[in-house]
Amino acid sequence: MTAAAIYPGSFDPMTRGHVSIIRSGLVAFDRIVVAVLRNPRKDALFTIEERVEMIREEFADTPGIEVDSFEGLLVDYCRLKNARVVLRGLRAVADFEYELQMANMNRHLEPTIETMFLMANDAYFYVSSNLVKEAARLGGDVSRLVPDSVASRLTKKLGR
Amino acid sequence: MTAAAIYPGSFDPMTRGHVSIIRSGLVAFDRIVVAVLRNPRKDALFTIEERVEMIREEFADTPGIEVDSFEGLLVDYCRLKNARVVLRGLRAVADFEYELQMANMNRHLEPTIETMFLMANDAYFYVSSNLVKEAARLGGDVSRLVPDSVASRLTKKLGR
Amino acid sequence: MTAAAIYPGSFDPMTRGHVSIIRSGLVAFDRIVVAVLRNPRKDALFTIEERVEMIREEFADTPGIEVDSFEGLLVDYCRLKNARVVLRGLRAVADFEYELQMANMNRHLEPTIETMFLMANDAYFYVSSNLVKEAARLGGDVSRLVPDSVASRLTKKLGR
Amino acid sequence: MTAAAIYPGSFDPMTRGHVSIIRSGLVAFDRIVVAVLRNPRKDALFTIEERVEMIREEFADTPGIEVDSFEGLLVDYCRLKNARVVLRGLRAVADFEYELQMANMNRHLEPTIETMFLMANDAYFYVSSNLVKEAARLGGDVSRLVPDSVASRLTKKLGR
Amino acid sequence: MTAAAIYPGSFDPMTRGHVSIIRSGLVAFDRIVVAVLRNPRKDALFTIEERVEMIREEFADTPGIEVDSFEGLLVDYCRLKNARVVLRGLRAVADFEYELQMANMNRHLEPTIETMFLMANDAYFYVSSNLVKEAARLGGDVSRLVPDSVASRLTKKLGR
Amino acid sequence: MTAAAIYPGSFDPMTRGHVSIIRSGLVAFDRIVVAVLRNPRKDALFTIEERVEMIREEFADTPGIEVDSFEGLLVDYCRLKNARVVLRGLRAVADFEYELQMANMNRHLEPTIETMFLMANDAYFYVSSNLVKEAARLGGDVSRLVPDSVASRLTKKLGR
Repeated sequence: MTAAAIYPGSFDPMTRGHVSIIRSGLVAFDRIVVAVLRNPRKDALFTIEERVEMIREEFADTPGIEVDSFEGLLVDYCRLKNARVVLRGLRAVADFEYELQMANMNRHLEPTIETMFLMANDAYFYVSSNLVKEAARLGGDVSRLVPDSVASRLTKKLGR
Repeated sequence: MTAAAIYPGSFDPMTRGHVSIIRSGLVAFDRIVVAVLRNPRKDALFTIEERVEMIREEFADTPGIEVDSFEGLLVDYCRLKNARVVLRGLRAVADFEYELQMANMNRHLEPTIETMFLMANDAYFYVSSNLVKEAARLGGDVSRLVPDSVASRLTKKLGR
Repeated sequence: MTAAAIYPGSFDPMTRGHVSIIRSGLVAFDRIVVAVLRNPRKDALFTIEERVEMIREEFADTPGIEVDSFEGLLVDYCRLKNARVVLRGLRAVADFEYELQMANMNRHLEPTIETMFLMANDAYFYVSSNLVKEAARLGGDVSRLVPDSVASRLTKKLGR
Repeated sequence: MTAAAIYPGSFDPMTRGHVSIIRSGLVAFDRIVVAVLRNPRKDALFTIEERVEMIREEFADTPGIEVDSFEGLLVDYCRLKNARVVLRGLRAVADFEYELQMANMNRHLEPTIETMFLMANDAYFYVSSNLVKEAARLGGDVSRLVPDSVASRLTKKLGR
Repeated sequence: MTAAAIYPGSFDPMTRGHVSIIRSGLVAFDRIVVAVLRNPRKDALFTIEERVEMIREEFADTPGIEVDSFEGLLVDYCRLKNARVVLRGLRAVADFEYELQMANMNRHLEPTIETMFLMANDAYFYVSSNLVKEAARLGGDVSRLVPDSVASRLTKKLGR
Repeated sequence: MTAAAIYPGSFDPMTRGHVSIIRSGLVAFDRIVVAVLRNPRKDALFTIEERVEMIREEFADTPGIEVDSFEGLLVDYCRLKNARVVLRGLRAVADFEYELQMANMNRHLEPTIETMFLMANDAYFYVSSNLVKEAARLGGDVSRLVPDSVASRLTKKLGR
C-alpha cells in the first residue's frame, strides 16, 4: 500500500515556500500529487499549463511527485486519485483559520479524508505568490524567493 | 517500508480530542507511537504509568498504535524509534504559534524530522486536559469529553 | 419593558450557525429582530426577499423572532426598532477583530447601543455562508449545514 | 420576568475596564450579579471581602447590581442564582480564545446557560488587573485606570 | 546626520489614527516623509492630490513633516529619499501579520532598510479609512475620527 | 541632538534574535541602551552580571551600544537615561498583544515616551530564550541560535 497525499493550490506561481512544503511532505508520503486548481473566477498571471510545467520542471528529478490540475470539489478529486490525505502549508494565523475552515468543510463532505498541515521553512515563512508577483511587477528582484523554473518565466512574462 | 509517526504529549489525561487526532493520523501512518512525556517539573494528576495504561486500554483493538513514554529531546526519541514524523493536533491560535515555535526548534535540532499537524474533530476542538481536570475537580460531568478508560479513573482519582 | 436585540447580517443564505446564535440569543432577549442587510455593492445568490422568507420559515413556530431587512447605518435602524442591543456571532479570530472594529465604530456613532457577542454551537463553528455556497456550487452536499428551508432552495437555485 | 446575568471574575482589583463592561451589560440585563471567584490556588493582593466591598462601593447608587462571591462550578452558581446568562468582557485575541474554550466547556456542562461577550470601552481595552498591580507596585500612577474605591485602597495596600 | 523615516500609505483619507502615528514618530525621527501610494488598481474616494493636500494642511505647522506621493517599489522610493526607515502603524492582529509579511519582503528586496512599527493611540486603535468612509457614506458622523481638514472635505465629497 | 532608545528585556540569555533586533535598531538610533531587567520574582539561569557581560562581549566593537541593568518602572528608567523611545522586537501574535498592552500602559504612565517595534530576522523569528534554554538543558545543540559569547557559557553553565 502506498500512502498518497494531494497538495492542492493555485501555484500562480509556485514559490520556494511551496517547494519546501512538498519536500517536507515526502518524509511522510511516498507519492504527492501537486494539484493546480482550475479556478475560472480568479485572475491569474500564469496559465494552468504554465503552472503545471514550472512545477514539473522543479521536480523533474524527484521520484514520487506527480503534477496535475483539477476543478470541482477537492474531496472528489482525492477519491479520483485514491488519496486520503490533503497536504497544506501553514504560515500566518490568518492562513491558519482559513485552513481550519476548509479542512472542517472537507471533513464534513468526506469524513474519510484528512487534512495534514506542514510548516514552511522559516526562510520562506512570509513568502506568498501574491506578494512575489506584486514585487516582481514593480521591478523587485524576487529570484531567491521562487525556484529557477519560475524566476526566468516571471521575468519574461512581466517583460523585464 | 513503514511510515511511522510519534505523537508526543502530556496526556494528563488523554481527552477525546487526542483520540480523534490519533485516529485521523492512522489515515496517513501505518504506525503511530503515542509518547507520554516524562516531565519532572510539571505537576500531574495521573502518574506516567496510569497515563500509558489508559491510552493502551483505549487503543487495545487498534492495530498500529504503540504507547510509550520518553524523556529528553523529542528529536532524540524520534531517532531512537526510527520515526521521521512528529504528529501534533491543532486547536486555537495560541496553540498554533507555540506549535510553530516547537516545530521550528525541532527542525533546527534535526532537519530530517518533520512535524505534521492535524485538526481535532470539531466536537472536541476546545477540549483541553487542563480544563477537563478543572471541571472534574469542581464536580462537573466531563465523561463525554474523555474516553471511558479515563472517565472511570478520573472519578476514582478525584474521590467522587 | 421588553429587551430587544437586532441580529444583522447578509444571511445569503442563513446557516445552522446563524440559527444556533439566534436560539442562544433568546435566552437573554424576549425579542430578536433578524435584520437582512440590503447591500447593493455585494453580489448575492439569494434575493433579499428569498433570504427573509427562508429565515421566516425556519422560525415560524418560535415566538419572539421578527424578520426584517434594512439599509443604511445599523445604529439608525436600531433606533427605529427601539432596540439597544446588537447581537453578533463569534467564530474565528479574524472575525473577532472585524467585529470589535464594527462594535467600536457603532459605539462611536451611538454610545447608548451595545454590541453583544455569542459563540456559535461548536458543530457549526467553522461554517460560513460563503463556504457553504462554494461547496454547494461544486456539488457538495451541505444539507446538514443549513436549515431545511435553505437546503431545498439551494438545490433549486444551483440547478442540481 | 427579569433577565439576570452573572459577571464572574477575580476582580483583584476591579479596573475601569470591568466597570465599563458592567455598565454596558445593564443595557441588556435588569440585574447583573458581579461574582468574585474564591480561587484558593491563586495568590491575590486583595481578600475576597475587600474585593466585594470595593465593587459594592463603586455601584452603590446603581440599581440592578448585586455583588457576591462564589466557589465551585460557574454553571452551578448560575443555577443557584437563577441566571441563564454569563457575561464576559473581550479584549485581546488571547483572551478571546480562552473565553471561547470556557464558554464551550460551560455549554457542555449546562446547555441551557449561554455566555455573552461585551467589548470593554476602548480607553480601557488594554487594561488588566495584573498589569495595574505590577505598575502600582513599582510606583506607577494607575489612579485613572481603576475606580476611586480601588485607587485609595491600592495606595494603602502597597504602602505608598 | 538626520534620521529620516518614510510613512507610506493610501491615506484615503487620513484618519486621526494616522495623525497619532506620525506625531509619535516625531519622537524618534527628525524628518518623516508621509508618502501617498499611487495605486492605479485601487478605487479611491479622494484623488492623490486631495489626499496630499489634506495631510499638508494637518501638518502645516509641524516642522519635520514632508508630504509626497510615490509609485513603484517602496524600497526604491526610500533610496530616492535617502531614508533607511519605513514607519508603519499597528492595530489588529490581522494587520500585524500583513505588516510582517511586507516588512519581510522589503527586507529581502533591500536589507539595509528597516521597518519600524508604532502603536496608534488607543482612542483610534480600531479606526480605519475604509470603515470611516463606509460610515460617512451612510450618513454617520465621523468628524471626531478624522482631522478637521478631512472632515469638511468628506462632507462635501459625499454630498451631505 | 542624539536620538537614544532603550531596549529592555530579560536576556536570559540573549539570542541571535535579540542581536538582530539591536543591529536593526542602529539604523534608526545613534545610541541604544540594552537594559537587563532586574526581576527578583523570576527564576533565571544566568545572573544579571553574566547577562550584561555576554551582551557587552557581543557588541564590544559596535559603537552606540550601551549595556546596563535596571529595576522599577521602565518609564522612570527612560527618563533617567534621557531616552524617549523604547525598542521592542515582534515575533508571534501572542507577543504582539502583550507588547501592545505594555506599550499602552507605558504611554499611560508617561505619554512622552513611545514604544517602537522591530521585526526579528526571519531566521530567528521563532527563537526564544526559554526554548533555547529548554533545548540546551536536554542536550540539544543551540549554538547557531545564540551569539558565541552565550554558546560557550551555556555549555559551561549546564555542565555539558
